[in-house]
Amino acid sequence: MDINEELIEKLVQTNNANIVLLVMDGLGDIPNKEFGWKTPLEYAITPNMDRLAKESALGRHIPVLPGVTPGSGPGHLGLFGYDPIKYEIGRGMLEAAGMDMDIKDGDVAARCNFATADENGVITDRRAGRISTEKCQEICSILSENIKSIDGVEIIIKPGMQHRFVVMFRGENLCDKLTDSDPLMEGKEPLAVEPLNEQAKFTAEIANKFYRQAREVIRDLKPANSLLMRGFSAKPRIPRMQDRFGLNPVCIAHYPMYRGLSKFVGMNVLDAGNTPEDAFRVYSENCSKYDFLFIHIKYTDSFGEDGNFKEKVKTIEAVDKALPILLEKKPNVLCITGDHSTPVPIKGHSWHPVPVMIHSEYCGFDDADRFTEKNCNKGSLGMFQSKYLINYLLANAMKLSKFGA
Amino acid sequence: MDINEELIEKLVQTNNANIVLLVMDGLGDIPNKEFGWKTPLEYAITPNMDRLAKESALGRHIPVLPGVTPGSGPGHLGLFGYDPIKYEIGRGMLEAAGMDMDIKDGDVAARCNFATADENGVITDRRAGRISTEKCQEICSILSENIKSIDGVEIIIKPGMQHRFVVMFRGENLCDKLTDSDPLMEGKEPLAVEPLNEQAKFTAEIANKFYRQAREVIRDLKPANSLLMRGFSAKPRIPRMQDRFGLNPVCIAHYPMYRGLSKFVGMNVLDAGNTPEDAFRVYSENCSKYDFLFIHIKYTDSFGEDGNFKEKVKTIEAVDKALPILLEKKPNVLCITGDHSTPVPIKGHSWHPVPVMIHSEYCGFDDADRFTEKNCNKGSLGMFQSKYLINYLLANAMKLSKFGA
Repeated sequence: MDINEELIEKLVQTNNANIVLLVMDGLGDIPNKEFGWKTPLEYAITPNMDRLAKESALGRHIPVLPGVTPGSGPGHLGLFGYDPIKYEIGRGMLEAAGMDMDIKDGDVAARCNFATADENGVITDRRAGRISTEKCQEICSILSENIKSIDGVEIIIKPGMQHRFVVMFRGENLCDKLTDSDPLMEGKEPLAVEPLNEQAKFTAEIANKFYRQAREVIRDLKPANSLLMRGFSAKPRIPRMQDRFGLNPVCIAHYPMYRGLSKFVGMNVLDAGNTPEDAFRVYSENCSKYDFLFIHIKYTDSFGEDGNFKEKVKTIEAVDKALPILLEKKPNVLCITGDHSTPVPIKGHSWHPVPVMIHSEYCGFDDADRFTEKNCNKGSLGMFQSKYLINYLLANAMKLSKFGA
Repeated sequence: MDINEELIEKLVQTNNANIVLLVMDGLGDIPNKEFGWKTPLEYAITPNMDRLAKESALGRHIPVLPGVTPGSGPGHLGLFGYDPIKYEIGRGMLEAAGMDMDIKDGDVAARCNFATADENGVITDRRAGRISTEKCQEICSILSENIKSIDGVEIIIKPGMQHRFVVMFRGENLCDKLTDSDPLMEGKEPLAVEPLNEQAKFTAEIANKFYRQAREVIRDLKPANSLLMRGFSAKPRIPRMQDRFGLNPVCIAHYPMYRGLSKFVGMNVLDAGNTPEDAFRVYSENCSKYDFLFIHIKYTDSFGEDGNFKEKVKTIEAVDKALPILLEKKPNVLCITGDHSTPVPIKGHSWHPVPVMIHSEYCGFDDADRFTEKNCNKGSLGMFQSKYLINYLLANAMKLSKFGA
């Protein structure tokens, strides 16, 4: 345990206050030439957030370290109060958890694609022409029926969206220190999975046998006649938010990965539906049952990744418009932020510090008339590592006792 | 030693420059609805600090960690350049030092209250009706005469204000890992002091014997016919400012705790008197004898704790009005700050970063026309952990050599 973890655990006290963490995925952005050098957050019409900004503490947080661009896993772990360098979650496990798979200590999971191979096994399409989700389910059933275990290791297969699925290995002495079989380009055969240490040799054999056996089973099911494996990972050892912070947390999210991540830190999971209104209604109906409510809005990130300024703006505006549904319940602490920045000009995640505002009876505030990157630059919260956000949330909820006499 | 401690010790160089650290206890605050959403510092009329702010570097510091509310001990240790998590001082020792008690290595002290008990020993008033300080001195004399040692351990008793006193145990093999006897509520008997580890067993016996013997002695002295013990603690092992920073430091304070704390880091102690004028006069008379002068103003915190906005404002204004007495001596470095925030709406210490300004010939400055929380938010010092304040003070006094060629 690092010093912050140790201290916060010592200071945590419980009370009835509740905390809402509203995350617009990839919210942060940079000024855009085509739109008068404004960011989507500046460009958007957001009367509700504007009003809130006037009585909130603003600032920015850094997901991992200065200049480091985080994936969704590290971004969210930081927001939940976990050092994302210390607690790394493999992509396979994240997917598995997001698919509601039952995960046991010692399991190793990989994210897989169905792919198209030519007669020599060379990959011609890494996504098997993005087959339908139904087709994927069908092929996964066939695989499950044909491959139940390999050398005493149970094989569990679960279909995802389109060409995606997860394979999980369950048994003794498994280890996730393995290379991917995905060559990340077409025109090559899948790579042999290599062990990265002695302990992983057996698991590598299982993975390679699984590839060969699966390939036999689906050989004639073109375009989904091959498969690629990535992100082998074991169940992470993460202390639960209940134990670290004395919180009773819930995740309100629609996308599998965020639900999966939340489960690893002990959250219950509720489906957020597809729109901000849906998510806030789910919040409204459940807010009395939890004292930490994480609400995840995906599309700000998606449109950032697409480089679509206008749709990112619209998503922010839709969140703002629906916000009164949430505000009506008067959460004791409301934090609005992102898990990282996804600037439209970059079309991807970035290292830019993430705007954040915290509203509570005791937050103090900053002269800001809007929630924007520029106002956050000047905010009273300053710039801090995301893993400290939970400190501020707990403090504003009066859930931290005084340190020292 | 952490990296900062190690580096600063290596870089320290002596010269004739002097540093004044003027601490208004609990200075930081948050906007107050009743007073036009201003903080006391914004509301106060402070022409002298305003003038200074125009030629100072402003910023904010975080006493312990983001979101963590510090007690007075950790708050001041940070200001003096000590990591408050690494150097923790127990309440008993802090009180003992503040009462000018002579403290030796191995001593263990507890903060005590006289209390009122009924015929069964059940506490009916944890503060014995707040007996007068004279009464307390009288009873402490009786106790001292009657209990000089227990099982070879010397018992030293010193009266404080009203119902408060300190008991110190001096002898071989003492250990401060003990629970309190104070049940923290009326209607219960004092608790037995329990050892928290094997080594503390002997000291726990001494503490419990002291309670029984003392109770016998004062049994008929109602309302002060019982006693409660809290915050057992040993003399902390803290390197002196002389050794770490090459400074010759002095504390100018009126309240025992701050004087006590200052002694632990090697400061001489002078009585500040009761008003800012008094304190600044003591400074004036002594400024040539020291090169680090810590001046402590208590009432900003007291009025914050009382939720008394106007009196907190008046205290700030009184400090400002008296400031010319201090400025006349032209300290090479003058830093004005608090040890933590004590926002009026919270009526207690808080986690909010503390405004700070540093004035020196080389401080640089920031366009600020006043010393306020909002200007500090935008200041050139940014936001930093309090333990780094000493770096800036030493640097401004040209007492740090260059690192590396």
